[in-house]
Amino acid sequence: MAGNTIGKLFTVTTFGESHGLALGCIVDGCPPGIELSETDIQADLNRRKPGTSRYTTQRREPDQVKIMSGVFEGKTTGTPIGMIIENTDQKSKDYSNIKDIYRPGHADYTYDHKYGFRDYRGGGRSSARETAMRVAAGAIAKKYLASQGIVVRGYLEQMGDIQIEQFDWDEVQNNPFFCPDSSKVEAMENLINSLRKEGNSIGARISVEATGVMPGLGEPVFDRLDADLAHSLMSINAVKGVEIGAGFESVSQKGTEHRDEITPEGFLSNNAGGILGGISTGQTIKACIVLKPTSSLLVPGQTIDRQGNPAEVVTKGRHDPCVGIRATPIAEAMMAITLMDHLMRHRAQNGDVNAGIPVIPPEV
Amino acid sequence: MAGNTIGKLFTVTTFGESHGLALGCIVDGCPPGIELSETDIQADLNRRKPGTSRYTTQRREPDQVKIMSGVFEGKTTGTPIGMIIENTDQKSKDYSNIKDIYRPGHADYTYDHKYGFRDYRGGGRSSARETAMRVAAGAIAKKYLASQGIVVRGYLEQMGDIQIEQFDWDEVQNNPFFCPDSSKVEAMENLINSLRKEGNSIGARISVEATGVMPGLGEPVFDRLDADLAHSLMSINAVKGVEIGAGFESVSQKGTEHRDEITPEGFLSNNAGGILGGISTGQTIKACIVLKPTSSLLVPGQTIDRQGNPAEVVTKGRHDPCVGIRATPIAEAMMAITLMDHLMRHRAQNGDVNAGIPVIPPEV
Amino acid sequence: MAGNTIGKLFTVTTFGESHGLALGCIVDGCPPGIELSETDIQADLNRRKPGTSRYTTQRREPDQVKIMSGVFEGKTTGTPIGMIIENTDQKSKDYSNIKDIYRPGHADYTYDHKYGFRDYRGGGRSSARETAMRVAAGAIAKKYLASQGIVVRGYLEQMGDIQIEQFDWDEVQNNPFFCPDSSKVEAMENLINSLRKEGNSIGARISVEATGVMPGLGEPVFDRLDADLAHSLMSINAVKGVEIGAGFESVSQKGTEHRDEITPEGFLSNNAGGILGGISTGQTIKACIVLKPTSSLLVPGQTIDRQGNPAEVVTKGRHDPCVGIRATPIAEAMMAITLMDHLMRHRAQNGDVNAGIPVIPPEV
Amino acid sequence: MAGNTIGKLFTVTTFGESHGLALGCIVDGCPPGIELSETDIQADLNRRKPGTSRYTTQRREPDQVKIMSGVFEGKTTGTPIGMIIENTDQKSKDYSNIKDIYRPGHADYTYDHKYGFRDYRGGGRSSARETAMRVAAGAIAKKYLASQGIVVRGYLEQMGDIQIEQFDWDEVQNNPFFCPDSSKVEAMENLINSLRKEGNSIGARISVEATGVMPGLGEPVFDRLDADLAHSLMSINAVKGVEIGAGFESVSQKGTEHRDEITPEGFLSNNAGGILGGISTGQTIKACIVLKPTSSLLVPGQTIDRQGNPAEVVTKGRHDPCVGIRATPIAEAMMAITLMDHLMRHRAQNGDVNAGIPVIPPEV
Repeated sequence: MAGNTIGKLFTVTTFGESHGLALGCIVDGCPPGIELSETDIQADLNRRKPGTSRYTTQRREPDQVKIMSGVFEGKTTGTPIGMIIENTDQKSKDYSNIKDIYRPGHADYTYDHKYGFRDYRGGGRSSARETAMRVAAGAIAKKYLASQGIVVRGYLEQMGDIQIEQFDWDEVQNNPFFCPDSSKVEAMENLINSLRKEGNSIGARISVEATGVMPGLGEPVFDRLDADLAHSLMSINAVKGVEIGAGFESVSQKGTEHRDEITPEGFLSNNAGGILGGISTGQTIKACIVLKPTSSLLVPGQTIDRQGNPAEVVTKGRHDPCVGIRATPIAEAMMAITLMDHLMRHRAQNGDVNAGIPVIPPEV
Repeated sequence: MAGNTIGKLFTVTTFGESHGLALGCIVDGCPPGIELSETDIQADLNRRKPGTSRYTTQRREPDQVKIMSGVFEGKTTGTPIGMIIENTDQKSKDYSNIKDIYRPGHADYTYDHKYGFRDYRGGGRSSARETAMRVAAGAIAKKYLASQGIVVRGYLEQMGDIQIEQFDWDEVQNNPFFCPDSSKVEAMENLINSLRKEGNSIGARISVEATGVMPGLGEPVFDRLDADLAHSLMSINAVKGVEIGAGFESVSQKGTEHRDEITPEGFLSNNAGGILGGISTGQTIKACIVLKPTSSLLVPGQTIDRQGNPAEVVTKGRHDPCVGIRATPIAEAMMAITLMDHLMRHRAQNGDVNAGIPVIPPEV
Repeated sequence: MAGNTIGKLFTVTTFGESHGLALGCIVDGCPPGIELSETDIQADLNRRKPGTSRYTTQRREPDQVKIMSGVFEGKTTGTPIGMIIENTDQKSKDYSNIKDIYRPGHADYTYDHKYGFRDYRGGGRSSARETAMRVAAGAIAKKYLASQGIVVRGYLEQMGDIQIEQFDWDEVQNNPFFCPDSSKVEAMENLINSLRKEGNSIGARISVEATGVMPGLGEPVFDRLDADLAHSLMSINAVKGVEIGAGFESVSQKGTEHRDEITPEGFLSNNAGGILGGISTGQTIKACIVLKPTSSLLVPGQTIDRQGNPAEVVTKGRHDPCVGIRATPIAEAMMAITLMDHLMRHRAQNGDVNAGIPVIPPEV
Repeated sequence: MAGNTIGKLFTVTTFGESHGLALGCIVDGCPPGIELSETDIQADLNRRKPGTSRYTTQRREPDQVKIMSGVFEGKTTGTPIGMIIENTDQKSKDYSNIKDIYRPGHADYTYDHKYGFRDYRGGGRSSARETAMRVAAGAIAKKYLASQGIVVRGYLEQMGDIQIEQFDWDEVQNNPFFCPDSSKVEAMENLINSLRKEGNSIGARISVEATGVMPGLGEPVFDRLDADLAHSLMSINAVKGVEIGAGFESVSQKGTEHRDEITPEGFLSNNAGGILGGISTGQTIKACIVLKPTSSLLVPGQTIDRQGNPAEVVTKGRHDPCVGIRATPIAEAMMAITLMDHLMRHRAQNGDVNAGIPVIPPEV
């Protein structure tokens, strides 16, 4: 399998390059009878869309999704949902400067070794533009999950050295960074502005969580819910790490501190991030990812060309100084797709076997 | 799929509970003609085996593997390799104290919600004992990879607050912790001893890497090599985080610092951890995981029973104060299985397409 | 999995309903570097296209394929190939007569039970129109296979009681029935004309074969080459049976008659249809399918409506009196897709292991 | 994937060669809470077992199954069920006569081309002995299906030219041929006896059906229920053809004859074999397979050896003159596994969407 599909029961298969005719995907396995329209999907696409603020790439794409199949009279039919986003801003610019050069930190060199050559226009298939279809597919998953009481949402936790200190979900949509701490927004604006001047970039840390997940979702061994989340989140461009719950802090925790003790009134903590033994506990599912700083920089860098000669690279053009900024809706989409898949897996094998098992409230 | 299989071309499917008759697995898709004997596999099993030092659980299992099929006249035939490890130390102890109670930090509660009931003897399927078969399967992958010049190995990087400062691969096998810094071994011994007295436990951080991986392995979108590694490593019991290359440090790196510049003599750094765009660069593949402190503690903790009543839990018996200690061979096995799978995927689709592409040396 | 994907390494996922905006598919896993253009694909689509002769449905669709991704500068890139065929002839006719009725022999009743409701326009997803994308994907497989010396082709063997007696591959393209016996064409024309008058339909038997297949393709147990061919061929609308080689005639053959004896000059017969133990022998792969007569008839039939009341059904409109006529290119496509998948599977696991094994010529 | 797994949600993976230590399998995805013991499985194994009558091979294997995991206190736990059958009658005979020769009609030549060499003892992995684990896994599926009102059973329909004329389910278990027509049993005995004397063999035709299947199981395109049945049935050793419902008779049927008209009292016929558009109708699922005559014959045959020289082959030893005789329980097992898989797939995606859709009785 060439790996352009994710999920086992709720599957998403994408196609499309940065500068091809269109991006597209097929969402297969969606339950029938769900109300769905293009506007449901467009809302999330707009959150990811480039060119909406001066802090992200200036490529302007309407990113208008078209549903080609699988919806009839406003409802999903249970058959595959085909979706298309046409590429309209395929600037027919001159790529001769990067065509024969391996940009450091990019997939140019690895694509050439994998395929023998590559579509070099705008990064081709390795462009973050590919994530648009993930967001479109994720919007379907999010809509269905919401009907089951499950809400998936994310936020920016850190940009460079700027870490959030206050938390307000309502603030997340009030700034272009998905930052829940309004007191940090100005510092972030300043950081982006100075990076843009410098021709440089910076990393970011994103949190994403799901509330309302019933206990019992996940598989016991390889397809643990946390392992599948790690897979889907790490598959996002530029992600270099994934944590569940307490994550890397667990290394210096003692067992008495880490284990989440239980009372009839609820769990006393959530170091587990809502997953034990690969299966959901009913607490909030908590994951965290880090995105590297983009390697498309105005600061010149050393590299080689396709003939092996030393070369210098400078990436002009429309680039995000912090690719993590637009990653929040993508991370939400990936978590939603994974949860949707496990919800359906649970129904297939286990149905309603847990009648009579007590339900522990998420948290005291 | 119930998720007891990993891999797409080189697949490993395991079965077995902590206190059942046996553990077993089927390795499917192994190339034919590879010399393989039980002793090849036993060597790695012995590294993971409990009861070999006073710093790990005192459960004593010979963990003797038997190859049931797929090997003929000392060579793999290309047909499935069935393997079995009989459980010999199934202490028929009294489980009535945990049978009806949900141990915090364990999978008791989640298994009950998933399946309606559970095999409570020693954790059943959620026991780390299940990882023995991963190590057995991984040993086959490691043997094949070695024949292609790929070496997978790991070490303990941190236990609680004790971080390694010196590095010597030769030291790794000289102590029961897989610690490459001999100057830290005594501190680790002391930590384990004091935790044991206290009835408590601690987390750990493990690094695992692969050298000799040719550029071009991996897939461009969902099944990126890093995403598949995140999946396989996060599927190990107790793992709460996975990093590739610079990992979470990337958050405060600038692009000029993170991107690994290239010269004809080699890459100038390896923040990528050997993977760009989901595909190997030819540099060392570097991953890092964190394991939580075990929740099997002598220190009493609050919980509820199967009827929802408050209860207190104390876990007596043979437990590792630091489950991370024995995780090194398991992490190696998982990385080897994932690399093996991608090596075969590469051959299927891409064969020898990269003739003529320059090869950058791993590092200057 | 909702089953809209076929193949494991070379995968085809389709979407689209008879009267939706478009049909589409994603071909994933195609080797990179293959010359491919829309005209390569269009040629096969035109062979399947409705409205090309008076013996098939009068629905007129240009069936113009558009490649949306995966091809760059005339060559496949190895990334997913997205293709679209827009539906142009979506006659906005009145479906009220079939909307609430279960047409016998159609999928109306079963779709309602599976999904709770259905897209009733022209059969929705159950329409044979869905096979257009199979032909498009199959054309890619056929092109690659041809570059490896493998040729896949089919013909009509029987229509109703009219069986071919002479055989000439050149004749197959000379008549609208894909019939290799020119002496039977007039009888077939007459049969179709009389069925059309009568408002009735008839079954057909199609043969499809592949020459040039190297020995060694296939898997030993569940994914035998013949089992996978049975799967892919039986998945074509209206197919009710699949045979390999001697097929159902084997029941009255003796072992001495059926076994294909071998001489250094070649096999003495091909009852096996080119497959032994699920693996190709190097002989011609031979499969045969039967397609039922369509159930869209002018002759009134008994049925019930969605409320369970008795009803009468008459299907007006543009229907093939023999759906088998256009099945030949579809059967070729499915065989090509399956062979392509197994060719890639072979490369992944087995590479070039058979050096030194003698090669038996296909036939004396 | 090396193809030793079948099913997507209810999966069966087998291992083992004819003369290895053991056969085994892992059944994954089985619902939890089903009562299951070894005796449930042994009953079906005994029906397939060799050496039970003078009409089948004289190899005597107790075929005693051991459940290694996945069952606790008499019930399935939902985790993988590992099963083993030890090979006890591995006659350490001399294989030098077939080691270097390609038996016509066997997989010797194709295995050598696929793998470079083979386990030649008793056919290795290509031996019909492999089917024992299918029967074991199928017994679990049958038990669960029975709890849902679905009964799977088969019978011998034809052996050579001897076709059944009368039908009585009760007779099927009264003779070693699974023949429902007691008046044909003597003729079958005579045929087998004369073939044995002659050193020859004969083909057979087996029917298998499922009653009680609810409408709505199956998928619309590639994974149609009939396509998946074709796959699973064609994967049985020696099968050369599969029919659903009217099968190859459909070729000369008219639409008015083939379509199964519907009344509120039930369907008027079942040419569809219980499947329309790939989805079950609620009628009896009907499939039919043909098994070729075995190629293990005392009558000498022409072949070549591993060096390409002409050779003569005579297969001595314990062989069934009609391998179709023991195929009935195997065909039942494969149909049960496929139905079980689709039952679970239905639950995952569709749940209980069909409330209010009328249910047509199977037949008037």
